[in-house]
Amino acid sequence: MSLIVFYTEKKMRYKITLEYDGTDTLGWQRQLDGPSIQQYLEEILEILNGYPKEVASAGRTDAGVHALGQVAHIDLDRPMEPFKIREAFNANLREKGAPASILEVEPVPETFHARFSATGRGYIYRILNRRAPSPIRLNRVWWVPVPLDIEKMRQGAQYLLGYHDFTSFRATACQAKSPLKTLDRLDIERQGDEIIFTLEAKSFLHHQVRNMVGTLKLVGDGHLRPQDIQTILEQKNRSAAGPTAPACGLYLNKVFY
Amino acid sequence: MSLIVFYTEKKMRYKITLEYDGTDTLGWQRQLDGPSIQQYLEEILEILNGYPKEVASAGRTDAGVHALGQVAHIDLDRPMEPFKIREAFNANLREKGAPASILEVEPVPETFHARFSATGRGYIYRILNRRAPSPIRLNRVWWVPVPLDIEKMRQGAQYLLGYHDFTSFRATACQAKSPLKTLDRLDIERQGDEIIFTLEAKSFLHHQVRNMVGTLKLVGDGHLRPQDIQTILEQKNRSAAGPTAPACGLYLNKVFY
Repeated sequence: MSLIVFYTEKKMRYKITLEYDGTDTLGWQRQLDGPSIQQYLEEILEILNGYPKEVASAGRTDAGVHALGQVAHIDLDRPMEPFKIREAFNANLREKGAPASILEVEPVPETFHARFSATGRGYIYRILNRRAPSPIRLNRVWWVPVPLDIEKMRQGAQYLLGYHDFTSFRATACQAKSPLKTLDRLDIERQGDEIIFTLEAKSFLHHQVRNMVGTLKLVGDGHLRPQDIQTILEQKNRSAAGPTAPACGLYLNKVFY
Repeated sequence: MSLIVFYTEKKMRYKITLEYDGTDTLGWQRQLDGPSIQQYLEEILEILNGYPKEVASAGRTDAGVHALGQVAHIDLDRPMEPFKIREAFNANLREKGAPASILEVEPVPETFHARFSATGRGYIYRILNRRAPSPIRLNRVWWVPVPLDIEKMRQGAQYLLGYHDFTSFRATACQAKSPLKTLDRLDIERQGDEIIFTLEAKSFLHHQVRNMVGTLKLVGDGHLRPQDIQTILEQKNRSAAGPTAPACGLYLNKVFY
C-alpha cells in the first residue's frame, strides 16, 4: 500500500452491479470470522485507492444467499474507465478465488448511494419440485420432493400483496424500525421442474422473502389453506408463520433506482 | 455384506436414468485414484444384492463432464418397485455425498443393455459468452469473454453434419475402431448470455464434442472461417483442429433407445 496519489482531480463515484455465489461466504457484510463479499471488494478498492474505505451495497444478503444483480458504489481518487474498473476488480476477485464477479460499472453523481438511492429490490426464489434431488443445482435451489399445488400458493400469495404489518414474516433479529412494508409483486411460475417466485418491494424485512416462501410452501403441500395466510398476517407473530426457507434458493435479482 | 439372498425369483433388470455433477469426480468410469459415478452405483448395488457386480452405462463421461440423462442398467436378485429402487439409491448417494441422483427407474427385459441397446446419444455444450465470469455458473459453462459470431459458427457446423471421418476431432487416446461417424444434429442457439450447442449422433468418438466445440469457437471469434471446418475434416489430423473445449461445459443430455 505504498501507492501515493498525486492526482488532484475530483473523486469519482461508480455504481457497480455484481453477481455472487453466497454458498461459501458469510454473505454480503464484512465479518471477523470468515470471507464476505464486502470484504473482497474493500480489499480490491484499497489496492486502487491506496487506503481502506467501506463499500456500501443496496442491502445485506445472508450467508448462502446469492446475487444476480447486487449493487454497490465505490469512490475512486483517480477516475478510471468503467470497463477498466470492471476488469481490475474481476482479475483481483479471480486471483482471490472470490465467488463474485462485477457485471457492470457506471459513473454516477456523488449524490448516488447504493442503499439510500434505491427505490426497490427484486428477489427470485427457486424451488426444485421433483422427487429426485439435483446435483447440478445443489446450493442453487431449495429441493422440495413433495408435489406443490402452484394454484393454491398463488391464492395464498394474494394476501401478502400490498401494505401490511409483516411482523409474522420478520426475523426476530430484524433491526428495521417498522414492520410495515408494501409488497409490490409476488409472482409464482412453474419453469420445467422448478417453481420460481419473483418478488418486488421498496424494501424487505430481514428474512421476509424466505419466511413468506417457507409459509407458501406449506400452502402448496396442503398443510395450510390459502386463506390461512391472511390469519397469519393478522396475528403479527413470527411463530404463526411457517419455517424460514433455506438461503440457497434465494437470489437478489435486481435493485431499482 | 453378510446378507444372504434366498429368493429364487428370476433376476430383474432395470434401466436407470441419472443426473450427475462431474466436477469433483473422475467421471463415469471406476478408477483407483478417486471417486467415480460408476463406483458409487456399484457400492449401492452391492448393498442391495449382497455381492459386487459391475454397472454398465450408455457411455463413459470424462472427469468434469456432467450428465442430465446418463443411462445405466442394473440387475437385482430380488425384484423391487422401481420407485423404491430410486429412493434407495438416492438415499445412499446422499449419505455418501455423491454428486449424483437417480431420476428414473424402469423395469426392462433381460436383453436390454445400457450401452449396446442405445441407438443414439444427445449432448449439450454451454458457453457463457459475456465479458464477466459467472460465479453462480462456475463449473457449469465454458466462459468465453470475447464476442462470438453465432451465425458464422452455424455455417461452420454445417460441414460437420452427416457421415465423415472425424479423425481431426478425435482424441489421440480414442479407442474406437473407426473414426467414421454420422453426426445427426449440431444446433447452435443463443439463450440469454449463453450459447447452447445441441448435438446428436448414434455415438461419438472420445473428445469429439469438445473438439468440435473448441474448433467452432475459433470460427466464432474470427480465427477461422466457416469453410475452414471442411479443410480441417479433410486433413484427418487432430492437430489441424482447435483445442479441446473444457469439460465443465459438456452435459450428456439424453440416451436414445
